[in-house]
Amino acid sequence: MAFDADSAVFRVHEGGKLWLRSTLPLVDRESLSLAYTPGVAEVCSAIAQDESLARTYTWRSRLVAVVSDGTAVLGLGNIGPAAALPVMEGKAALFSEFADINAIPIVLATTDPDEIVETVERIAPSFGGINLEDISAPRCFDIEARLRERLDIPVFHDDQHGTAIVVLAALRNAAAVTGRTLAELRVVVSGAGAAGVACTKILLAAGIGDIAVADSKGILNPRRQDLTAVKAEIAAITNRSGISGSLAGALDGADVFLGVSAGLVDEDAVRKMAPRSIIFALANPNPEVDLDVAHRHAAIVATGRSDYPNQINNVLAFPGVFAGAFDVGARAITENMKLAAATALSEAVADSLAPDHIVPSPFDKRVAPAVAAAVAQQARRDGVAL
Amino acid sequence: MAFDADSAVFRVHEGGKLWLRSTLPLVDRESLSLAYTPGVAEVCSAIAQDESLARTYTWRSRLVAVVSDGTAVLGLGNIGPAAALPVMEGKAALFSEFADINAIPIVLATTDPDEIVETVERIAPSFGGINLEDISAPRCFDIEARLRERLDIPVFHDDQHGTAIVVLAALRNAAAVTGRTLAELRVVVSGAGAAGVACTKILLAAGIGDIAVADSKGILNPRRQDLTAVKAEIAAITNRSGISGSLAGALDGADVFLGVSAGLVDEDAVRKMAPRSIIFALANPNPEVDLDVAHRHAAIVATGRSDYPNQINNVLAFPGVFAGAFDVGARAITENMKLAAATALSEAVADSLAPDHIVPSPFDKRVAPAVAAAVAQQARRDGVAL
Repeated sequence: MAFDADSAVFRVHEGGKLWLRSTLPLVDRESLSLAYTPGVAEVCSAIAQDESLARTYTWRSRLVAVVSDGTAVLGLGNIGPAAALPVMEGKAALFSEFADINAIPIVLATTDPDEIVETVERIAPSFGGINLEDISAPRCFDIEARLRERLDIPVFHDDQHGTAIVVLAALRNAAAVTGRTLAELRVVVSGAGAAGVACTKILLAAGIGDIAVADSKGILNPRRQDLTAVKAEIAAITNRSGISGSLAGALDGADVFLGVSAGLVDEDAVRKMAPRSIIFALANPNPEVDLDVAHRHAAIVATGRSDYPNQINNVLAFPGVFAGAFDVGARAITENMKLAAATALSEAVADSLAPDHIVPSPFDKRVAPAVAAAVAQQARRDGVAL
Repeated sequence: MAFDADSAVFRVHEGGKLWLRSTLPLVDRESLSLAYTPGVAEVCSAIAQDESLARTYTWRSRLVAVVSDGTAVLGLGNIGPAAALPVMEGKAALFSEFADINAIPIVLATTDPDEIVETVERIAPSFGGINLEDISAPRCFDIEARLRERLDIPVFHDDQHGTAIVVLAALRNAAAVTGRTLAELRVVVSGAGAAGVACTKILLAAGIGDIAVADSKGILNPRRQDLTAVKAEIAAITNRSGISGSLAGALDGADVFLGVSAGLVDEDAVRKMAPRSIIFALANPNPEVDLDVAHRHAAIVATGRSDYPNQINNVLAFPGVFAGAFDVGARAITENMKLAAATALSEAVADSLAPDHIVPSPFDKRVAPAVAAAVAQQARRDGVAL
């Protein structure tokens, strides 16, 4: 075997990472007759007459399905449903720890988008929200869009929107620390997968100045013939200056590099960025820019790693986003709710803002409630609350 | 509103009855890096190379999906998935309390058998076992059979087999208390739904003398033209004496009445049963035979009610059945494993057998481990253990 079963990682995983219990100990006839038959029949009958009562009398109103087909798991790629399960268990554990939300891993024996949509639709009455996870691009865009259209509960692809919310919050603070506004920034995004597309869209919605997006073949622009539908859409709404060619070329004079791809960027390219440049190199464990190089040239550096300052970690977003949506019985998570989450997240470090502190610590327990409050308020404004 | 939100039943149900937690508190960078990234990637990679490791390093090996389409919920009938959820939560709570097994309600937005089979197949990699619940007959038979064939994890329709196991255990003890063997008994079953069919099959497998089964139109026999496929199969293997006509007629001289239907039986019919008769009137809350009448004529009376002795309660079976199957990584639950469960259950009261004590109390904590041990041993014998 190629692994060490005695290592801390494997020991922590023995028997899995989740634990389910009854809220009421079923120790005698009385408790059993309240929680189960015959008492439960009264609750069933009430819900059968008025389904809205399920929100109060079942656990589903604060229950998330963490759904994955195992096609894009961490940096490991398409490893299938069984091997994806430890990640989904971890995600469910984070929901529990950070927002007191119940969450359940659902890994699928299909990678067909139609079948995924159909399956999630059929199990949806069991849940209050759907967190899509580690589903490969571009399939993830269509799957999420169709589920959002068909279901009246929050559907949220965390690899897209969780990342996008935290990136926007961090970038807003990075701009503030370096004395600029979002509108003044020219951004280059490396990566046009789930995270790259969602970050691009939320940055545009937040009023970023200009943004160019590169995939492995270079900068997206409308003249390219090799684009998927989603990349063509991104090409149409970005790249105001109409550049083409390599990522390195696009970085010339850019204010911000946002790496969500793992493609490496060398020092020459970084050196040519504008003064007071901002580098978010989020690939894990190896950032797109060598961190010594980044610190040599940039005013602010953020990574996806927990052992450096400014960690862009989705856990700053998704627990609060779902908690806020659940608190007001939101039917959906709107674009405005994501923007509100990012604003609340950036404001959570307003009193201690510094180049190495543009986002809160993932363990700052004030973050999820603050994000939840902003998301709930925006849900009411957007008319999607109960 | 037609219900009292301040009543104990509704208060117990507020927010639902299940509660999910992380086995490891995620309170610092170290715990997060063990249970989630980057540590979890090692576990994912190991499982990707050898899927059998999922048994050790994920929670699925002791995780049951409690699956229902809400078509046959308690005595309430087809009330739909949302209204069925409180029952499924209760069932999951029982798995937790009685066998330390994690179980999750999955209620479905479809009642189509093909779609149910397909959906359960697609979510199956998330689970270690499937407990089908409150799915109406005759659809339940086909759905279970197809899932058993397609999945390599235990699939168990509790309304069939849980009831059948407890009925067999109780009847074996009732026969012993009244000085007879199973082979000597002539049984009349009222009800040819999920429970009736499964009870009939397990009693035949256990060597019962003769058995006749009635649906609402009378005794099943091969001459009837109105039988579903399942009822025709039952007609072919039962009713050795070839009787037809009413349930009441069949009871003349019978040793055992097993009611799993709610159809009432009057005192005249009960009076004509054989001496030392045995009455299992399991309809809830109103037994098929008035209990005063039953006690006037029968040597042994059992019901489905918690407020009378001899309660035939599925909780005596399903926690131990799944625990035993999980303990040895069983690929399926065989007919022999069900028989072994019934034997273990009947033996659990061997030292205190009495007419009003033919089954253990549902709260006897020795039962599930005893059933589990017998089921595990039989799984090994049947070659379905890991």
